[in-house]
Amino acid sequence: MDSIKVPPQKIESVEKVLEKYIPEDELKEVKRILYGLNRGQIVESLPIPENVSKLAQASNFEVVSSKITAEPEQLRKPRIVKIGIIQNAIGAPTTDPVHDQYMAIQNKIEKMIDAAGALGVNVLCLQETWHMPFAFCTRERYPWVEFAQPVDGEATQFIQRMARKYNMVIVSPMLERDLVHGSTIHNTAVVVGNNGNIIGKSRKNHIPRTGDFNESTYYMESTLGHPVFETVYGKIGINICYGRHHNLNWLAYGLNGSEIVFNPSATVGELSEPMWGVEARNAAMTNNYFVGSINRVGTEHFPNEFTSGNGKPAHKDFGHFYGSSYFSSPDNCRSPGLSRVSDGLNVCEVDLNLCQQVKDKWNFQMTGRYELYAQFLTKYVDPNYQPQIIKDPSINQHSNQK
Amino acid sequence: MDSIKVPPQKIESVEKVLEKYIPEDELKEVKRILYGLNRGQIVESLPIPENVSKLAQASNFEVVSSKITAEPEQLRKPRIVKIGIIQNAIGAPTTDPVHDQYMAIQNKIEKMIDAAGALGVNVLCLQETWHMPFAFCTRERYPWVEFAQPVDGEATQFIQRMARKYNMVIVSPMLERDLVHGSTIHNTAVVVGNNGNIIGKSRKNHIPRTGDFNESTYYMESTLGHPVFETVYGKIGINICYGRHHNLNWLAYGLNGSEIVFNPSATVGELSEPMWGVEARNAAMTNNYFVGSINRVGTEHFPNEFTSGNGKPAHKDFGHFYGSSYFSSPDNCRSPGLSRVSDGLNVCEVDLNLCQQVKDKWNFQMTGRYELYAQFLTKYVDPNYQPQIIKDPSINQHSNQK
Repeated sequence: MDSIKVPPQKIESVEKVLEKYIPEDELKEVKRILYGLNRGQIVESLPIPENVSKLAQASNFEVVSSKITAEPEQLRKPRIVKIGIIQNAIGAPTTDPVHDQYMAIQNKIEKMIDAAGALGVNVLCLQETWHMPFAFCTRERYPWVEFAQPVDGEATQFIQRMARKYNMVIVSPMLERDLVHGSTIHNTAVVVGNNGNIIGKSRKNHIPRTGDFNESTYYMESTLGHPVFETVYGKIGINICYGRHHNLNWLAYGLNGSEIVFNPSATVGELSEPMWGVEARNAAMTNNYFVGSINRVGTEHFPNEFTSGNGKPAHKDFGHFYGSSYFSSPDNCRSPGLSRVSDGLNVCEVDLNLCQQVKDKWNFQMTGRYELYAQFLTKYVDPNYQPQIIKDPSINQHSNQK
Repeated sequence: MDSIKVPPQKIESVEKVLEKYIPEDELKEVKRILYGLNRGQIVESLPIPENVSKLAQASNFEVVSSKITAEPEQLRKPRIVKIGIIQNAIGAPTTDPVHDQYMAIQNKIEKMIDAAGALGVNVLCLQETWHMPFAFCTRERYPWVEFAQPVDGEATQFIQRMARKYNMVIVSPMLERDLVHGSTIHNTAVVVGNNGNIIGKSRKNHIPRTGDFNESTYYMESTLGHPVFETVYGKIGINICYGRHHNLNWLAYGLNGSEIVFNPSATVGELSEPMWGVEARNAAMTNNYFVGSINRVGTEHFPNEFTSGNGKPAHKDFGHFYGSSYFSSPDNCRSPGLSRVSDGLNVCEVDLNLCQQVKDKWNFQMTGRYELYAQFLTKYVDPNYQPQIIKDPSINQHSNQK
């Protein structure tokens, strides 16, 4: 399976390097500043039961588990929820028949959902278009569009079985074929309830048109707004991939009541890795919800070469998906991340009460001045908008610009 | 001067710890992922001329200098600007007469501006209300309100002299006494042009009402909007302190055309340090401007004890201002930071052309869908707004919630 092998990476993760070299006292301070591990309320790693460890070892995926607590309240009971996120490489070469490729991924995912079930995960999210290679870089239609499925298709039916089996809410990000509306394709997340029912769907709000990610070749921006799904385990929003660069997108999911927002993604190191640890955490700490950030892992090789609009020669892959899936907390902390190189399941036990507690502490919503910004944006989108610029009147009198 | 000494801190800065322990190869990769140092376009440190080193050593402040480049273009020349930010502790005990305290700070600042001038800084910003201790935690009126000055008062006149001396644009964040409008007080930034003229002022848009920061005791939210100042060295916005938690505030400065946004702040470790490296970088990378983040340094002791609304005993200081002033780039990189414990001048030479180059690359503005959000926020501020929530219809049929 040469086409899905992971090229050697210099480091497995930043955390592992820090832990390897920095003495304990200073490491504690570095982690406090970098990762917010100063509340005494995040337990960095929870024990993994032996049956889960064995399953993970046999199937070659990593399991990371942590816990973020909240303060007790007088009138509300804690709302403890175990959130899971899964990252994975594809399961078969991109030259295999479409359905074989799909089944190879499903078989991998099934074992990881089994592990999540054994760990008592309540809410799980898979990576963006989990059931296929991220082939949009090729700009070819076939065979890639054949991976698209209706919302109630084979992939969702599999997810529904797993949801019922483990009494688990599962968010399934997929390439959707909308048979009702012109057979168009969408980048969608299907939300399956813990009883196996389809609660609804959300679609990608912001579509990249940059470098290898010319995704508007395949699908357009969502017209479904910013739905938040009220499940038995809390209120969930899904900000798909490129939407993580848009603060307004994160904001709208927050103002609609999200307690958990997933960001299923597919992104490579050269492009975005320094942003990966920043944007989701900023969203969590300024909107005060939990974020589960998921990136696929590995390098996907395609049969035909393609160019990337960057003046470089044609090539057959577009870089290494660096995994590193992790959780951000509504306050300022984050969980450990999965590795940059292997499949993995990351589980975080949280108390959803923390969301409101942090809102009460920081008052970002109370001081948000949304009226001001509703007016500002309304004016801004006017084609005749004049930006509020105050020019130094002395610029034209002197000529001291370099 | 017991009242302004810096209590011992466990580490001077995260970067210094990383550099001390991690071998070069792995350090390079860690810095690439954490700080975006992967473009080959950021030079981590520039040489400091000997006269500046001597001045800094004699006056006990640190100087850090870096450079961020952009690609050459065919039609625009590079727009090279040296940006400076200054962090400092107060200069005299808070029990000294008000004007003595002011002069002690001005004397410190003057030397640091001299260093900035010697380094060829074009645009400089000082810390929030630089001319006084951050006494708002006390909730006492006198003597603290006596530090307030009109926009054209003594502090501004000093800044104007320095601006003329070094042909420098200087942003001077200050406590303003507005004699025209009821003698009210404001948290203001005065922008002084390189010819020494006052170009205008900006005020703090979001006022904290949390913990020790009950600043609405002293001043209210700005009604001046999001002005951007067009200077001879580029377009500048000022997002004062707590406004850094508000993504809409950053956005509005960006949409009004900022190429540099300063965030003069005063914030302590227990509260916000893990957010310090996240929020400004997120703003820079999603709005595609440079950000200069400035935090004061040291621990300020006040004569009378005060409480902080957190159930803890009364005390006379509210923690350690951790400095750590740094620059974020419109792409995904950041400069080295100043230390957590000492006064300092951080200088970054940039090419302002990078702002538009990153916009062209990432297309965040093109894909921003501002019409959608203008409508969303307009609906949201309606008191009868119904959030877009899709409830799992099976929740009431089953009873499997914990």
